Amino acid sequence: MVKAGIIGATGYTGVELIRILSRHPEVEVVGITSNSYVGKEYSDIYPSLKGYFSLKCEELNIKDLIKKSDVIFSALPSGHAHAIAGEIVASGKKLIDLSADFRFYDLSLYEKWYGNVPILDECIKRAYGLPEIHRREIKEANVVGNPGCYPTSAILGLAPALKYDLIKSEGIIIDSKSGVSGAGHSPTLNNLYAECNESIKAYGVASHRHTPEIEQELSHIAGRCIKVTFTPHLVPMTRGILSTIYCDLKEVHTLQQVREAYAEYYSKEPFVKVLGEGQYPRTKDTYASNNCHIGLAYDEHTGKLLIISAIDNLMKGASGQAVQNMNLLFELPEDMGLDFPAIYP
Amino acid sequence: MVKAGIIGATGYTGVELIRILSRHPEVEVVGITSNSYVGKEYSDIYPSLKGYFSLKCEELNIKDLIKKSDVIFSALPSGHAHAIAGEIVASGKKLIDLSADFRFYDLSLYEKWYGNVPILDECIKRAYGLPEIHRREIKEANVVGNPGCYPTSAILGLAPALKYDLIKSEGIIIDSKSGVSGAGHSPTLNNLYAECNESIKAYGVASHRHTPEIEQELSHIAGRCIKVTFTPHLVPMTRGILSTIYCDLKEVHTLQQVREAYAEYYSKEPFVKVLGEGQYPRTKDTYASNNCHIGLAYDEHTGKLLIISAIDNLMKGASGQAVQNMNLLFELPEDMGLDFPAIYP
Amino acid sequence: MVKAGIIGATGYTGVELIRILSRHPEVEVVGITSNSYVGKEYSDIYPSLKGYFSLKCEELNIKDLIKKSDVIFSALPSGHAHAIAGEIVASGKKLIDLSADFRFYDLSLYEKWYGNVPILDECIKRAYGLPEIHRREIKEANVVGNPGCYPTSAILGLAPALKYDLIKSEGIIIDSKSGVSGAGHSPTLNNLYAECNESIKAYGVASHRHTPEIEQELSHIAGRCIKVTFTPHLVPMTRGILSTIYCDLKEVHTLQQVREAYAEYYSKEPFVKVLGEGQYPRTKDTYASNNCHIGLAYDEHTGKLLIISAIDNLMKGASGQAVQNMNLLFELPEDMGLDFPAIYP
Amino acid sequence: MVKAGIIGATGYTGVELIRILSRHPEVEVVGITSNSYVGKEYSDIYPSLKGYFSLKCEELNIKDLIKKSDVIFSALPSGHAHAIAGEIVASGKKLIDLSADFRFYDLSLYEKWYGNVPILDECIKRAYGLPEIHRREIKEANVVGNPGCYPTSAILGLAPALKYDLIKSEGIIIDSKSGVSGAGHSPTLNNLYAECNESIKAYGVASHRHTPEIEQELSHIAGRCIKVTFTPHLVPMTRGILSTIYCDLKEVHTLQQVREAYAEYYSKEPFVKVLGEGQYPRTKDTYASNNCHIGLAYDEHTGKLLIISAIDNLMKGASGQAVQNMNLLFELPEDMGLDFPAIYP
Repeated sequence: MVKAGIIGATGYTGVELIRILSRHPEVEVVGITSNSYVGKEYSDIYPSLKGYFSLKCEELNIKDLIKKSDVIFSALPSGHAHAIAGEIVASGKKLIDLSADFRFYDLSLYEKWYGNVPILDECIKRAYGLPEIHRREIKEANVVGNPGCYPTSAILGLAPALKYDLIKSEGIIIDSKSGVSGAGHSPTLNNLYAECNESIKAYGVASHRHTPEIEQELSHIAGRCIKVTFTPHLVPMTRGILSTIYCDLKEVHTLQQVREAYAEYYSKEPFVKVLGEGQYPRTKDTYASNNCHIGLAYDEHTGKLLIISAIDNLMKGASGQAVQNMNLLFELPEDMGLDFPAIYP
Repeated sequence: MVKAGIIGATGYTGVELIRILSRHPEVEVVGITSNSYVGKEYSDIYPSLKGYFSLKCEELNIKDLIKKSDVIFSALPSGHAHAIAGEIVASGKKLIDLSADFRFYDLSLYEKWYGNVPILDECIKRAYGLPEIHRREIKEANVVGNPGCYPTSAILGLAPALKYDLIKSEGIIIDSKSGVSGAGHSPTLNNLYAECNESIKAYGVASHRHTPEIEQELSHIAGRCIKVTFTPHLVPMTRGILSTIYCDLKEVHTLQQVREAYAEYYSKEPFVKVLGEGQYPRTKDTYASNNCHIGLAYDEHTGKLLIISAIDNLMKGASGQAVQNMNLLFELPEDMGLDFPAIYP
Repeated sequence: MVKAGIIGATGYTGVELIRILSRHPEVEVVGITSNSYVGKEYSDIYPSLKGYFSLKCEELNIKDLIKKSDVIFSALPSGHAHAIAGEIVASGKKLIDLSADFRFYDLSLYEKWYGNVPILDECIKRAYGLPEIHRREIKEANVVGNPGCYPTSAILGLAPALKYDLIKSEGIIIDSKSGVSGAGHSPTLNNLYAECNESIKAYGVASHRHTPEIEQELSHIAGRCIKVTFTPHLVPMTRGILSTIYCDLKEVHTLQQVREAYAEYYSKEPFVKVLGEGQYPRTKDTYASNNCHIGLAYDEHTGKLLIISAIDNLMKGASGQAVQNMNLLFELPEDMGLDFPAIYP
Repeated sequence: MVKAGIIGATGYTGVELIRILSRHPEVEVVGITSNSYVGKEYSDIYPSLKGYFSLKCEELNIKDLIKKSDVIFSALPSGHAHAIAGEIVASGKKLIDLSADFRFYDLSLYEKWYGNVPILDECIKRAYGLPEIHRREIKEANVVGNPGCYPTSAILGLAPALKYDLIKSEGIIIDSKSGVSGAGHSPTLNNLYAECNESIKAYGVASHRHTPEIEQELSHIAGRCIKVTFTPHLVPMTRGILSTIYCDLKEVHTLQQVREAYAEYYSKEPFVKVLGEGQYPRTKDTYASNNCHIGLAYDEHTGKLLIISAIDNLMKGASGQAVQNMNLLFELPEDMGLDFPAIYP
């Protein structure tokens, strides 16, 4: 059994992690910490877990937590995991961080967009935790930077097209739509029911900090610098991200070839499904699952290739992916504890 | 492995059954039938199941289906299962019917409320499929009449109070609120998005046909005739039923005693959770799970006992309960394939 | 032109007031105050009003506001209006208070439930601002205590039945369901999108402070002490309250007589519509209007009379009713500025 | 008073028309027709109008309707209005058609995308009913082809940029998101609550028939052929369209200049509001109003100009715009009956 500790367990990614881990056949959650709910039964905070999970929230004592854990998940906001990663790794344990702290190869980029001074201990061997792209590095890492939710949907959507050089580098547009749970569990005007319901809006226009993360990974895949125009939108639903991606198909290719390339690229992936002709993803078809659905279309009269990807932002976009990474770190079957379809309807 | 056939597989209770059974460790779904989608890949109708379920819809050939199945689930509307039950049972197979066909002890009541002439073959040994009340009968039955969604929430809410004689028989009021998936998968004005969204209404006022079903079971439990005022409401959400039940606490009892009686009554039940003082159920805490949450309150200044129960109408209110019944019929652990918490948020 | 000042203008009742008053042919809004947004353009806070309303939020200077206003609306939480009412009235101006400060005849009840020590200046002549019940008093008042949203729906539902002595006094149950805007504009866990969406729950069970307000008015109408069991629920929608009311019809009466009594009682009311046989209200049919729809049913087999009422909690349940009261205070047509149907769908 | 007849009055654009016209100070609705509800009180079909509108649905008798009407609104699906337009116009009356029948200058394009053979009587003088672009033609027309909902949002978003030659002609992408009421009042799987709720999807990808309508108008404005990539999405909300438009700013211009150009272009328009720096539209801010909100942004690192427009699909996207057109046809103030802000929240 893998012993897991969770820091910052009471946010939405925390409760989703615990939902998955409480049913994972090879994991025991040994400790959970929280700033706001110290001493409180977790299943009193989240009664959905009554009968399934019986730990209480503790104050963070990092030494204790390291001692009893094989792996620590950090679900704190960016800026906290750097401070504890060295100690975790030095003790021979592993860290999966759900914030942006370990996502950037270029630390100055991290500092610029997140405003935190990065600290990277020498013993840290980190990987960007998108298994479909970095499976090998993840297996060898001791710290995994779990990807952002929007980046996951955008990168999975674009990876085959860039890898196989099917599209032009310029002019890629990623129009993403997210459910409100992505805004977290802390109450603000932005995630109030009456503000979000019956409304859609764009936000972080031309300035969202997931842009450099997306560009880093796309450039890595393409082997050249890729810039994208990325616009997130807030949609009145709890879960789900749909990314509608527009790019220019290179003239020598056809939609049929693109579809085959996608099918090939993802042929061994347990969680990515490439849809057939005329089929387009709905976020609902991935609800509460770790799956990513991808649909493809070609607009003949403008030459645009459309790639549409759907995920659940809390699963493949956060906690499901974190467990997938844990499975890789501990040489468990990659889909263990994650092998279930979406809830429908 | 239990071999299961599903008749009428393309409605919402059908897709929920298939979601559960496709992950059930001791079940293989061997055939699914549909009127509207013959020959179609099920995962093209419900892409959420892509990668998890690969059967096609067949036309119903009851002889064939009986031959290859150990158990048949019928998810057709009321009036169809009577016609096939005899043949299933005669072949030594079992039937779990999700319609009202086998729910009524008094067949004239069934005929009055559903307008179908009942046929009951002699070889049929039937049970009302609410395991918390009829576990023993279910185990010995060959036909299970799976309860209605509203009755499940109402009966589980009232059973201990009536069993232990804590409340008066008269004046019980059940005010139930349901999500729209209960209205089914066939498009009508009543389940249109723009009609249901941002609105709540009562329907079937003083005339809903779940009333006699509730009264039958409550009378059975109480050992005397119980009448209830039952009002269903349609709420803008996909899943979930909340029943707020009002009754008169007998003067000799206290809320504390009631809570203890409920805890005792459900102490060995895997799916019913009695909440603590000051805790009231939210349907969200049972979302996509087979759980029923029950909260209790006493209004001192009017002497009313309030019992509030929450379930997922497609799970404990339909398909989850059907699988629980199947587990009982085949002597499998009762929570097999159902042992997971709700999706939250 | 009536000159209106609004205190606490940036909550949801504030923006609803301004939406109505900005189109009212006989009102000019002369000043708005806010704690949190001093100096800010109101239409930057609520861009829906861009082009319709051009004031800025000011800090509250009560003397100035009184000087320039004929009427002051206070949309602050309970406990603030008592302190300013005397001064307003002494200057010959009128106050319409949307909090509970002026709703209770028995001040000790107010103190018990709201925890504020009441101050009532002698010059104050107050009225409970439900025009259908207290039209005459309102016209002669200088301070109007605008009713709570739940009480409005409950009292309008029960008034004719109690007035005409059609029902028994005991055992009245009011099961109310409200949209989330009733929880206000200040972010808390309770009004977060991801917490409220796809869920329904009861809250304030057997303890909501609208109970004594409802009982006060029902007792006033009935001429005897009326106690009720009142349970509010939170429904995933922005606006609307549906109250399902259960009571015992006195044996000498029929549903037909009840319906006629209701039609008679409300025959001259501009905003209350009694629905026909078999018709039940939907909150959507009152959305963004000042209307109250009432439906009636009789459950023969239990003797219960069901009264179902629907309103928009921000309109007839708050700001629309406040404007209706203002019209009465200033001898304007009662439906001026409010004479529009609901938004559908 | 303008006498108005409405054909096909019972769909969602019909009820929205009647909501507006029932309050319009210079209009009397004299007849409404319906296929499905002949003889039925309109306010029994749509109880939101109880007390505001008292006509019954009639079977269509076009001669009678023409006789008593000054203007006829047709809210039937495409393919019906062509057949009656000649007769209406020959009688000296006017037609405002909410279908696509009169939107296309090139009739072969209409035939190709809608599959109906067009009939255009000689006496017809038609105009594309987007007042901000074709005000003069509308005033002189006898038949108005009321624009599609998506085209309205896209054209208003792009008109100033193309008119003032601020952007490149190639590569314009329109990513639109619509509420479900756009799918109409006839029940299908696509507009079922349980299918749409908690989900977002693209549809009509690279093939939606609003594309040629958008291109026709943009080409007209730009004075050259404009092609666009247009993708509609279905969002879980009742009303609203948000269009996020991506294009390439010509290098000589700045965002500030673009904003000024937009402000100038729409300076005299009663319904179009250009938002300030850093402000982006929410559909909620236009809910149930005839307004269009437009926000602008420039993505420096990719050179893309983003234009985001929001409307209510049933108002500015259909019935509100139809009334605006009627006001123009009858020389009434353009905003008469439409001069109210959005409902918020």
